[in-house]
Amino acid sequence: MPRYKLLIEFDGRPFVGWQRQDNGPSVQQTLEEAAQRLCRESVRLHAAGRTDSGVHALGMVAHVDLPRALPPDKVADALNALARPAPVAVLEAEAVSDAFHARFSCVERSYLYRILTRRAQPALDRGRVWWHPRPLDADAMHAAAQTLVGHHDFTSFRAGECQADSPMRTLDALAVARVGDEIHVTARARSFLHHQVRNMVGTLALVGQGKWTTADVGAALAARRRAAAGPTAPPDGLYFLAARYPAPQE
Amino acid sequence: MPRYKLLIEFDGRPFVGWQRQDNGPSVQQTLEEAAQRLCRESVRLHAAGRTDSGVHALGMVAHVDLPRALPPDKVADALNALARPAPVAVLEAEAVSDAFHARFSCVERSYLYRILTRRAQPALDRGRVWWHPRPLDADAMHAAAQTLVGHHDFTSFRAGECQADSPMRTLDALAVARVGDEIHVTARARSFLHHQVRNMVGTLALVGQGKWTTADVGAALAARRRAAAGPTAPPDGLYFLAARYPAPQE
Repeated sequence: MPRYKLLIEFDGRPFVGWQRQDNGPSVQQTLEEAAQRLCRESVRLHAAGRTDSGVHALGMVAHVDLPRALPPDKVADALNALARPAPVAVLEAEAVSDAFHARFSCVERSYLYRILTRRAQPALDRGRVWWHPRPLDADAMHAAAQTLVGHHDFTSFRAGECQADSPMRTLDALAVARVGDEIHVTARARSFLHHQVRNMVGTLALVGQGKWTTADVGAALAARRRAAAGPTAPPDGLYFLAARYPAPQE
Repeated sequence: MPRYKLLIEFDGRPFVGWQRQDNGPSVQQTLEEAAQRLCRESVRLHAAGRTDSGVHALGMVAHVDLPRALPPDKVADALNALARPAPVAVLEAEAVSDAFHARFSCVERSYLYRILTRRAQPALDRGRVWWHPRPLDADAMHAAAQTLVGHHDFTSFRAGECQADSPMRTLDALAVARVGDEIHVTARARSFLHHQVRNMVGTLALVGQGKWTTADVGAALAARRRAAAGPTAPPDGLYFLAARYPAPQE
């Protein structure tokens, strides 16, 4: 069956998350139903990452096997037409070999987290940023973030319900920068634990407020207890940014 | 009565526009009701510009007279708290003299118009951009836009229901630039006619599609008939950007 790689943007607000669930519409269900209407057959999508309810994507990657070959642009156009009015868009579709798997072939995932640090609530970006009405020191947050980069046991930053076998992860990059009245946190790793980015952001916010030091972040990491780190930042500010794959036939 | 200048952001989607109307909630009504709850007196807001239904603002300016003096930050915080959950935010409040009038003192207004020119519909920016699935030539649009800059009779770009006494306006700047997969049109003038920016954008889009030339835009302007120019671009992509005032006591 021909396999297609899809690059997907979505607004996480109306969804229970990427994955199908009983308690509401998911991005996966929305696109699978669109694909089913296109092919008149039940199909399944596999994504590079699962996202929680309210988390957005600028560049989620998924793959799907369709019962017949179609020009990739037609696949994207048809899924977009059939997914409306859900806030999901297939930005690109590409025919790929059976060796490609959106989840298992992925060698790097990256996330963006947006914090709005102004006194007034967001009007245009409600639900799309974490509104933090008090100032945050981005430089202090960036310095502290470097403590988390590398190969570590991230138990302190892992949700209780995380299903990963191991709490060991290699965080390749964690950068904090001020962009106007926002603070942007970008994180890059082969894979992340459940809530890892949001828990790291919630902890770095304590540093930005001046309540925690870089050493406190290191101590939280070393403690290997979820309660030792800071709170979980809300889903609103989190965006699945990109998934990277090895070049084909390498 | 103490007068306050307010800098306001709003998402135009749920509103009938800035101005109070019988057919739905307006930004003006939302903020006036918030101010009334703050002061326990009926108050009136005056804005630099009226915006249509679905048009957004990044920096609308309005003024309001309150029955008693309050610290400006308290005015902003209270209006923000009382306006929720409407997508309106008072970014700044400032005490000003009675000589300041948000509408009549304004010497320059500027607008941003965002066009998304990609094949896939917007997911995250639905209702906040004009989705134009086919490419547009931003350079050709910018060149043609310069025909409209200056002091002209803008009858061809004026809505039928426009209530201005004169169709003469001085357009100080009209710039078109590509920003990623968007085209941004910025317009600056002392004042605009009703629908003028959207009608100029709709006309420039014809140039961007290669259907019209710069000369066609000049001919449309010279014709002084609304039907001679292009269609009205949708409200979704339009943002009231800023209002400029002379420095006080000049």
